[in-house]
Amino acid sequence: MIDKYIYELEFKVRDYECDLQGIVNNAVYQNYLEHTRHEFLLKHNVSFSDLHIQGIDAVVARVDIAYKYPLRSRDEFVCKLYVVKDGVKYVFHQAIYRTPDNKLCVTAKVTTVVTINGRLASGYELFDGLAEVNNN
Amino acid sequence: MIDKYIYELEFKVRDYECDLQGIVNNAVYQNYLEHTRHEFLLKHNVSFSDLHIQGIDAVVARVDIAYKYPLRSRDEFVCKLYVVKDGVKYVFHQAIYRTPDNKLCVTAKVTTVVTINGRLASGYELFDGLAEVNNN
Amino acid sequence: MIDKYIYELEFKVRDYECDLQGIVNNAVYQNYLEHTRHEFLLKHNVSFSDLHIQGIDAVVARVDIAYKYPLRSRDEFVCKLYVVKDGVKYVFHQAIYRTPDNKLCVTAKVTTVVTINGRLASGYELFDGLAEVNNN
Amino acid sequence: MIDKYIYELEFKVRDYECDLQGIVNNAVYQNYLEHTRHEFLLKHNVSFSDLHIQGIDAVVARVDIAYKYPLRSRDEFVCKLYVVKDGVKYVFHQAIYRTPDNKLCVTAKVTTVVTINGRLASGYELFDGLAEVNNN
Repeated sequence: MIDKYIYELEFKVRDYECDLQGIVNNAVYQNYLEHTRHEFLLKHNVSFSDLHIQGIDAVVARVDIAYKYPLRSRDEFVCKLYVVKDGVKYVFHQAIYRTPDNKLCVTAKVTTVVTINGRLASGYELFDGLAEVNNN
Repeated sequence: MIDKYIYELEFKVRDYECDLQGIVNNAVYQNYLEHTRHEFLLKHNVSFSDLHIQGIDAVVARVDIAYKYPLRSRDEFVCKLYVVKDGVKYVFHQAIYRTPDNKLCVTAKVTTVVTINGRLASGYELFDGLAEVNNN
Repeated sequence: MIDKYIYELEFKVRDYECDLQGIVNNAVYQNYLEHTRHEFLLKHNVSFSDLHIQGIDAVVARVDIAYKYPLRSRDEFVCKLYVVKDGVKYVFHQAIYRTPDNKLCVTAKVTTVVTINGRLASGYELFDGLAEVNNN
Repeated sequence: MIDKYIYELEFKVRDYECDLQGIVNNAVYQNYLEHTRHEFLLKHNVSFSDLHIQGIDAVVARVDIAYKYPLRSRDEFVCKLYVVKDGVKYVFHQAIYRTPDNKLCVTAKVTTVVTINGRLASGYELFDGLAEVNNN
């Protein structure tokens, strides 16, 4: 299999992210996934917060997250992604792997659209350069 | 259409739940969904935290969330649910409606399984009484 | 002792607010305290988020929190407050009591100032009406 | 002035940590401060979560936080600390500096005690080695 991921970010679990089951709370993975997307954009000189000030928002329309294996206190991990453009949608394919053993913890598909001054846009130039196009 | 929801919980957005876009952060909806499931269980005398102490954990295996309309500072809303048992899985169907105008904000399907002392169980009696059975 | 509190808000602990010690995480009490202040202001027709849009921000300069007794899963509680104006500062005195047994869990002193377009203001009319004045 | 800090940890603001004022929410700084304390302990082979399992808990009794300057989206910063033992208390003195300009954002004094099986302990050997003693 060819690894399609084009970006990855390193993290370490923080104790306050764990809940009374002693594992990272399910909602927190969305924080990890979001931060990875925003850092990916920043690396390409696209700032989520600056875009917002200009009236351009990347909006999450849908998330599908599969929880494979829980992260715990002190675990280190990487969050990876690649993006596919599908019509007006930018679909982020993301995965979280515990390190150093490379245990797969989460896979996610995060579907986003762009709004400009609150209206759905057919795309956004700066994002188009980062996405492969779905020709299926 | 017959409304299948069997439980609902009222909420109000708290300002710290909003992010720099001025709307409730996507991850926070998972908090709302989780709290509603736990309160639903409590209403039926099943405590998530007590179960955990007994070695019985309801574990989220998958979430599919569709974000329809954002909640903002001061919005009030209800989170509704019903549960379907499908093999070893308990699938929570949830929705968030802003009140009083009943605007649909989020729909979600949250797939959970039960582990007893860390091992997947075929089900859990107390949950079975709360779920309809999927005969499809 | 005369109870000086002029506002109180009811809460219930949500499981995601508890950490791996099985108690509400220390940082979460600041969320409770903030939400209570904002709801208090709203009750007096002052909206934190609307003020922000107008360039008026209530800014926390200092918090002193004493943790007396931990809240746990399923606990219900009230958060109370009164406000004293002291020079340019509005000092919120807050406390959290578990219900129904009235166990004192947290006391806090939250010192805020008002900025208008980013500059420190000597006060803000709408807040002045809500605060007693410190003549000490 | 001699810098007394004996540990520091690097961070970067994550967008979900910012609130509708566009700055890091006040409660989130407690997360930063806590994570820094726990990583400091880990560096000395003391694990907060392992201790909890053994019935030994480091409990925050009091926090005093002064907010000097807000952190924003994309800011990088370091959180520093040193510890003083004062009777049964371990007092963490912490500060947050934005990098690379070394702007002071937060100072904090976090007073902790140790409980063993829920009872206040006069101290904990592993912590004593990390703290200077207050002879005032």
